[in-house]
Amino acid sequence: MSEREAYEVVPKEEDFSRWFDEVIFKAEILDERYPVKGMYVWLPYGYELMENIMNIMERLLRQTGHKRVYFPSIVPESVLSREFRFIKGFQDSVFWVTRLGRQEIEEKLALRPTSEAIMYEVLSRWINSYRDLPIRIYQIAPIYRYETKATRPMLRVREVAFFKEGHSFHATYEEAVEQVNLEVWIYKSFYDELLIPYIVVKTMPWDTFPGALYNYDIVTIMPDGKALELGSAINFGDLFAKTYELRYMDEKGEKRNVNTTSFGISERSLAAVIAIHGDDRGLRLPPKIAPIQVVIVPIPTKDYEERIMDYCREVRSVLSRDFRAHLDDSDERPGYKFYKWEMKGVPIRVEIGKKELENRELTIFRRDKMERMTTPFEGVTKFIDELLRDIERVLAEQAWSYFKQRIYHARNLEELIENVKTKVVSFAWCGKEECGHEVEEKGGYGLIGYEEGALEGKGERCIICGEEAKHRCWIGRSY
Amino acid sequence: MSEREAYEVVPKEEDFSRWFDEVIFKAEILDERYPVKGMYVWLPYGYELMENIMNIMERLLRQTGHKRVYFPSIVPESVLSREFRFIKGFQDSVFWVTRLGRQEIEEKLALRPTSEAIMYEVLSRWINSYRDLPIRIYQIAPIYRYETKATRPMLRVREVAFFKEGHSFHATYEEAVEQVNLEVWIYKSFYDELLIPYIVVKTMPWDTFPGALYNYDIVTIMPDGKALELGSAINFGDLFAKTYELRYMDEKGEKRNVNTTSFGISERSLAAVIAIHGDDRGLRLPPKIAPIQVVIVPIPTKDYEERIMDYCREVRSVLSRDFRAHLDDSDERPGYKFYKWEMKGVPIRVEIGKKELENRELTIFRRDKMERMTTPFEGVTKFIDELLRDIERVLAEQAWSYFKQRIYHARNLEELIENVKTKVVSFAWCGKEECGHEVEEKGGYGLIGYEEGALEGKGERCIICGEEAKHRCWIGRSY
Repeated sequence: MSEREAYEVVPKEEDFSRWFDEVIFKAEILDERYPVKGMYVWLPYGYELMENIMNIMERLLRQTGHKRVYFPSIVPESVLSREFRFIKGFQDSVFWVTRLGRQEIEEKLALRPTSEAIMYEVLSRWINSYRDLPIRIYQIAPIYRYETKATRPMLRVREVAFFKEGHSFHATYEEAVEQVNLEVWIYKSFYDELLIPYIVVKTMPWDTFPGALYNYDIVTIMPDGKALELGSAINFGDLFAKTYELRYMDEKGEKRNVNTTSFGISERSLAAVIAIHGDDRGLRLPPKIAPIQVVIVPIPTKDYEERIMDYCREVRSVLSRDFRAHLDDSDERPGYKFYKWEMKGVPIRVEIGKKELENRELTIFRRDKMERMTTPFEGVTKFIDELLRDIERVLAEQAWSYFKQRIYHARNLEELIENVKTKVVSFAWCGKEECGHEVEEKGGYGLIGYEEGALEGKGERCIICGEEAKHRCWIGRSY
Repeated sequence: MSEREAYEVVPKEEDFSRWFDEVIFKAEILDERYPVKGMYVWLPYGYELMENIMNIMERLLRQTGHKRVYFPSIVPESVLSREFRFIKGFQDSVFWVTRLGRQEIEEKLALRPTSEAIMYEVLSRWINSYRDLPIRIYQIAPIYRYETKATRPMLRVREVAFFKEGHSFHATYEEAVEQVNLEVWIYKSFYDELLIPYIVVKTMPWDTFPGALYNYDIVTIMPDGKALELGSAINFGDLFAKTYELRYMDEKGEKRNVNTTSFGISERSLAAVIAIHGDDRGLRLPPKIAPIQVVIVPIPTKDYEERIMDYCREVRSVLSRDFRAHLDDSDERPGYKFYKWEMKGVPIRVEIGKKELENRELTIFRRDKMERMTTPFEGVTKFIDELLRDIERVLAEQAWSYFKQRIYHARNLEELIENVKTKVVSFAWCGKEECGHEVEEKGGYGLIGYEEGALEGKGERCIICGEEAKHRCWIGRSY
């Protein structure tokens, strides 16, 4: 196998789905060959990448007063099933433990599909008075859902390995509303840092999260034109409080229900990064999350090997002060190293051979545009710093530009039907459920959600009934 | 309830077990009231503490070339049961998933009791040639064991929430031996940083980890005189390689078996920190892992409140540069704050009232010795830095001194039997299995392990048969 072939993948435009699978394997993100369907092994490079992503979210969560906790992954059936809408929403997807060693168990135990039930059960003991509120907690722990649709690494999994979920507890409904808005802000800030484009929509009332009053979804569009939900911010109001006896004593000594919210992200955030920024050579990583930001590759020339290596080490020692720099001093040939680090999405490659040594300069290759340039070693830190920022700018611009190309604003049902097979389509909606359902029926796909009040007073007409439209609604194929 | 009472616990000497439970609850480490026995909720303070502990281990692992990965928690029965010694060792303790939603499952799935089986299954695909070796990986993910003995928070649990396990893969047996020695070094460095005393012993051949050739245990002694195993470094040789077809092609093109090792730590490390350093006021935390290293408590005086608070903020801003500092500006009274932060083990408290304000000085309280002193604000960083180091020294010295008091070196069986009920007892052993078993029988407890060759050439005699002793062996009550 030639060096080129080892890192060759099918072109992204030709077969996105195969491209995605090949890239995550060849870039060593994860190993799909795990003997339980829908579960995957995270390789060191993929793990580090995911860790850098999680660190961004963690910073945002701490900034906004969320504290990290840990709840076990196992929940007794009686706790999980107390909220009937909730258990109904998950009844087909729960992994049940029924045996311990060689014994049958008394009460079935669930691997948690999400943590609301168990947290509420436990927090009803933590919360007594209004002084205990608000509480904002989060945890990073896997959740388990027996997906019956076809599984896909990171996109549709049975073990969400990197589930980061926040839960909050408030005295009033208004505070819960504010918190959900804060959660949307956290999502936006997070995906802005990952350079991922998105829309934020309110979920259709008939698709709301089990047991919730309402929820917002943050949604991106994948290269195949399908919508991908990247996170949900959910307001439960006091629906769960009633079931789980989440009550507090207010300032007047009266018992009141606690209002709760939840939100979460998963490895889907990385799937979006890979899918949206990647190209036919593999990953293109935003510098902020790249495990290696600069890779140094020596280009050996006979009789100059040692001096070139010394120069490489000097460059590494300077770059390591400000960047995640790596010197690839392995025995592989330079060409192989080029393909490898391009596949792994390292934003900048520094090539050092005889010419660079003699001129005390560096050949710099930027992964995003596949462009080469030369710069003096003197002042290289500033040069790379600016280059990384330019790479960020280019990745974001390209991503948003593709995003807009994958959207169609339909003026009538005909246009909607024509475009919904390849794009995510928006349309004007009056807000009546029957009109929404009719679009789903005629369009052939579920509605993604709507931007509440986005068209109010704009004089647009509902695509179905022709009455005044209030909301911009979205429809499309989705993951 | 008075301020004192809110943070009162039973004296440690009077009832260690109750003291431990009360302290972990009142210091807000974890909540024991989880509806699945042997599983616990980690509170924010406890989580942060555990995180600081894990960071020490992670630094050591990265320094020694271990890379982080993630494997799912779920393993098919067929994979887990391939190694018969292994499955036999765990057959009574596995949590089995047998139902998915409303359906019966085809093949039972185990929540992993440890990761050897599944890692070997997967790594047999990663390893082809000698060039792929060695591989050193680790992960942090819960493991599940249905313990039938009485459960205890952190000490005997059914979900080991903070299981950090390393696994390694080597070309030769000699390399695996070297790796196990490295793992022992990692354990020692780790517990040295936590200021926890220990002995390192080789496990008795009849107690070796399921499927292993041999393993070392690192063991400490708890305040009740019982031995606590803190970690195991296990050499599997090529026993698992045969079962899981872990083979590589050597330099001559011949197929050879891979040699494997594993090791791991858990929340027991925190249990040891709490139990060994704590006193009748609660936790005493080693400065390196304390979530808060210095807490600043304002002592309000009428008409001086604001100026005192300003001074507190100034002190915090200086201290925050070098330490994890916290200003407790809550509405509680100073006395309550004192008890609270003593319970939570904050190494240093800074008290600031009118006198301190006027003299631009600080009253400093060290938690370890419960001693107060005064120092000028000028130069406080250096003062606190030295004080923290002295606290480390004192905690380590006290811990090692108690450790030695809980050990007895028995010269004969009579002394052993007399002391084994309250202490951990060492004795001279020839190395013959029957002599070991006889000590277990007469002593009434299992052997903890032995220091291989520790008595070789020292002229000591086996406590049972009187032949020349080779090893120092240990017996005692244990967790």
